[in-house]
Amino acid sequence: MLDSRTKIFGIIGDPVVHSLSPVMQNYFMKMFKINGVYCAFRIHSNDLETCLKGAPIMGFVGLNVTLPHKYAAAQTATFSSPEVRLLQVANTLQFKQDGIHAFTTDHYGFIASVGEHRARFSGAQVLMFGAGGSARSVAFALSQLGISALTIANRNESKAVELARFCQQNLAMTNVAAISINHPNLSHFIDQATILINTTSLGMYPIINEAPVALFTSIGKKHFVYDLIYNPLMTRFMYEAEKRGATVKNGLDMLIYQGLASLNIWSYEDFRLDINSFNELKSLLYRELK
Amino acid sequence: MLDSRTKIFGIIGDPVVHSLSPVMQNYFMKMFKINGVYCAFRIHSNDLETCLKGAPIMGFVGLNVTLPHKYAAAQTATFSSPEVRLLQVANTLQFKQDGIHAFTTDHYGFIASVGEHRARFSGAQVLMFGAGGSARSVAFALSQLGISALTIANRNESKAVELARFCQQNLAMTNVAAISINHPNLSHFIDQATILINTTSLGMYPIINEAPVALFTSIGKKHFVYDLIYNPLMTRFMYEAEKRGATVKNGLDMLIYQGLASLNIWSYEDFRLDINSFNELKSLLYRELK
Repeated sequence: MLDSRTKIFGIIGDPVVHSLSPVMQNYFMKMFKINGVYCAFRIHSNDLETCLKGAPIMGFVGLNVTLPHKYAAAQTATFSSPEVRLLQVANTLQFKQDGIHAFTTDHYGFIASVGEHRARFSGAQVLMFGAGGSARSVAFALSQLGISALTIANRNESKAVELARFCQQNLAMTNVAAISINHPNLSHFIDQATILINTTSLGMYPIINEAPVALFTSIGKKHFVYDLIYNPLMTRFMYEAEKRGATVKNGLDMLIYQGLASLNIWSYEDFRLDINSFNELKSLLYRELK
Repeated sequence: MLDSRTKIFGIIGDPVVHSLSPVMQNYFMKMFKINGVYCAFRIHSNDLETCLKGAPIMGFVGLNVTLPHKYAAAQTATFSSPEVRLLQVANTLQFKQDGIHAFTTDHYGFIASVGEHRARFSGAQVLMFGAGGSARSVAFALSQLGISALTIANRNESKAVELARFCQQNLAMTNVAAISINHPNLSHFIDQATILINTTSLGMYPIINEAPVALFTSIGKKHFVYDLIYNPLMTRFMYEAEKRGATVKNGLDMLIYQGLASLNIWSYEDFRLDINSFNELKSLLYRELK
């Protein structure tokens, strides 16, 4: 029961109305018997500073941060984890006496979500679509998963070049290339890779007919296709890939693992979900999606 | 279920950890099928301004205000209801596009809680203990209930005089006197009155052995003794009065009515509790008390 001791958590972003985090985190609260409540706060960029002054004095324990505030949150924090300092983005803020502590759990969420497919990554050639904040976190995860080569394909090629340089300079990745998502020989890059990752919003609800690639013919049995999108649960990219024999995965597990990691930071715990709870939560989140 | 559309409400004060409002308001949320959550925020006086800047931009619908912020909240608001302008205190803030709107529902809570005893007030002589913010709201309620005379007894007599003057000048009450709570002839004032009201914290948990009067012998069958305290539910004042045949009432009903009035302001509704729900809520609140 919610009472005067109930602790408050939340997510800030703009928009946040489609965020699954409140349903997920409130499920965690119940599951792990935390007297807490987790809400979504739509914060305009102009109001971020006011929000990050107000939330701590109101006794908020912490906030998740989503677009467009991940960079500004990292900048505003008093203390940043090594990962935040490296990636320059934060998705988790913790309010403590001595200030705001910033963390990022996206890369951890990616690694944890890979699970049984982890062995595929060792020595793999990876083709990743997108060069934004999610791509940066995934690149960091990939650097820890021991891949052998990364190609970054982006609509804005210069952003891909920039991320490639970041991977080389900051993540000690040696074999990184950047191409345009419209590269005439994209099929060749697909064929070279065994892992395809979509970090763009192409195919996300409501424009579900989109995909990061136009031609799916080069995709086959050898491919592991990981789409970070979870709404819909099966994107067009995943659907076309699976039809051609690829193994596919959506972004729901990553969402859950990064969220649980945030909760563990706030609560100084090491909460884990057993497989039944994990599946129960996934059904709950699935029902939330359109 | 709490989700990304869940609206946030709360109470600010210092301390607030013993507030029953979260349990009560969350009961209302469930009862009236409002997708909302109500939490307690301990706000230091120095932080009130930051809080009242932060809460609206975070999408809070409104806040209840308790000690020590009732006066400052009224001052800070962009718009004040006529009652707030009159009493100079607010217990309910509503955040709207055009600013902060301040209301007070304490006087309404008192009047509504009187219920079946309302006829006793018409033409009655009332002795009220205390001269603080609650006393002022009760005095306003008494002015609307048609009492004939009010005596205000307070430890700090000059505050009683001040409130008496306020009643005469602002509430158009003609027959108002101020005395010290240690007046040697307090028994005379008790005997003159048919209604005794305690607005002080004397007798409140944890110092439950206290009472606004030292001698209870003048209290008898004719008296209606209303103690605004609800923790404990039966104060020493009430207990001694009831033993001598008086009708007694604690502050729990008033708490509920003022809270429901706040919710109705925030939601533009006219929610009411039927008698069963009212009693269910009272049991719930009773269980929260030590």
